[in-house]
Amino acid sequence: MAQPTSHNAYLPGYAANQIQHHEWRTAENSAAYLLPSLKDLSTTNPIPTLLDVGAGSGTISASLAKYLPQGGQVLATDLSPEILERARSHATQAGVTNIRFQQASVYALPFADASFDVVHASMVLCHLDAPVQALAEMLRVAKPGGLVADRESDLRMWSYHPQLPGIDKSLKLLRATHEAAGGSVDGGARLVSWAMKAGARREQITASFGTWCYSTPEERRVWGGTLVERVRGGGMRQKALEMGTATEADLDEMAEAWEQWIGTEDACLGCLHGEILIRK
Amino acid sequence: MAQPTSHNAYLPGYAANQIQHHEWRTAENSAAYLLPSLKDLSTTNPIPTLLDVGAGSGTISASLAKYLPQGGQVLATDLSPEILERARSHATQAGVTNIRFQQASVYALPFADASFDVVHASMVLCHLDAPVQALAEMLRVAKPGGLVADRESDLRMWSYHPQLPGIDKSLKLLRATHEAAGGSVDGGARLVSWAMKAGARREQITASFGTWCYSTPEERRVWGGTLVERVRGGGMRQKALEMGTATEADLDEMAEAWEQWIGTEDACLGCLHGEILIRK
Repeated sequence: MAQPTSHNAYLPGYAANQIQHHEWRTAENSAAYLLPSLKDLSTTNPIPTLLDVGAGSGTISASLAKYLPQGGQVLATDLSPEILERARSHATQAGVTNIRFQQASVYALPFADASFDVVHASMVLCHLDAPVQALAEMLRVAKPGGLVADRESDLRMWSYHPQLPGIDKSLKLLRATHEAAGGSVDGGARLVSWAMKAGARREQITASFGTWCYSTPEERRVWGGTLVERVRGGGMRQKALEMGTATEADLDEMAEAWEQWIGTEDACLGCLHGEILIRK
Repeated sequence: MAQPTSHNAYLPGYAANQIQHHEWRTAENSAAYLLPSLKDLSTTNPIPTLLDVGAGSGTISASLAKYLPQGGQVLATDLSPEILERARSHATQAGVTNIRFQQASVYALPFADASFDVVHASMVLCHLDAPVQALAEMLRVAKPGGLVADRESDLRMWSYHPQLPGIDKSLKLLRATHEAAGGSVDGGARLVSWAMKAGARREQITASFGTWCYSTPEERRVWGGTLVERVRGGGMRQKALEMGTATEADLDEMAEAWEQWIGTEDACLGCLHGEILIRK
């Protein structure tokens, strides 16, 4: 499946700490809004199919597979064959057998119309320069009566303590870099709008908001570690220096602020994500 | 129970639309983080007691009462006897019988140490000029092994669509008015910190974040209606004009923006709230 070259690539990449955060994600902490519908589906359909689009390292996909009945199948797709290899290993290690993997672009899913009972994505559309086109493609491959489920960040909505200037700077940089790469910082707020532009009627859409919370020492290490790595040596540092949006000294200040945050016992950070379920 | 006069009063007040939003609140949409613990408690304790502090019109209190076993009791307190009368009527109408009401200040709860299995508050501490003192008082009246549960807004974290300048202005005004009245705009982010300052150890605290979502026509009417009323004729308009933080024309623009938002089919708004459970 060729990548449409007119579209943007996935900027954050797959550095060690970025992967560590990706792999922290589960159905429970990242797709809880979908679980009641999956449970309902499993009582009426013994062989449901779920397509997970832009699945990355696949921890949410494998976690979702556990909510399907024995005959249910997850198909996890991503543009990157390398990350799908990692996803495959994760599923094997987790003992999840009702899952398959296939390289695909969300803009040109290699499936017939009305192929899947559930089509799911998490933090995919917010990275794309044509999110409505991607959502329309997800709707296309969902069966009539099936569900399209999507969750996207609002990157402006990070509630944290303590208020360190270096953290604030790093969030501004993150948003600027994200937008420069073609993504939307406010995707979470625009999901209903995107869904309607992609062809859904308002009454087919159920909107909600979800969160991530980082507060325990382990959670702070996972989340703060991702940010430290991105500003110390990852793609965000390189991009910021190229674009001139931050100096070496700025980036070092950001990394130090995150390290301080990781070590602060009463530190806390919450992120707000928009969520939609579209009943096709 | 006398109100300590050194402390601030509850600014938003009880205008019709403010009440309408207050009464939209239930255990499910405003205290979901507490419900698994309440269910656990109900299996081990046939007569649990829950103190709901700053209960206002009491819809969350009455809703929580349904999660207790038959012998369980909710005691709902508020500084305002008038609003407690309304709470009492609501409970009667809802057929909730295991609930009582008592006027009290959160700063001087008229109860012995270790009186309640659960002490709960929702959007109370963020209005107070001494939130740590209030939280310490809530901890005092919780039984050892019991729970203190609290949820507070981060008023900076409103994710919405469409981006109308009048809405943005009204949120800035809301935050300024809230702070001028002695409240904290970032309470949701500071809950772990407040809890530790109030005497809790980090390992006693479980932090999470929750949300409110307004997206359907009915949800938009409830939430947007509150804001329209507050800027058209409520205490916020009066305060803004007194403080000189907005003109009549500004306030009218804000009201019109919210009216436009209410009528926008793909409009959406999410709020982010911090949550803590403290196991005493």
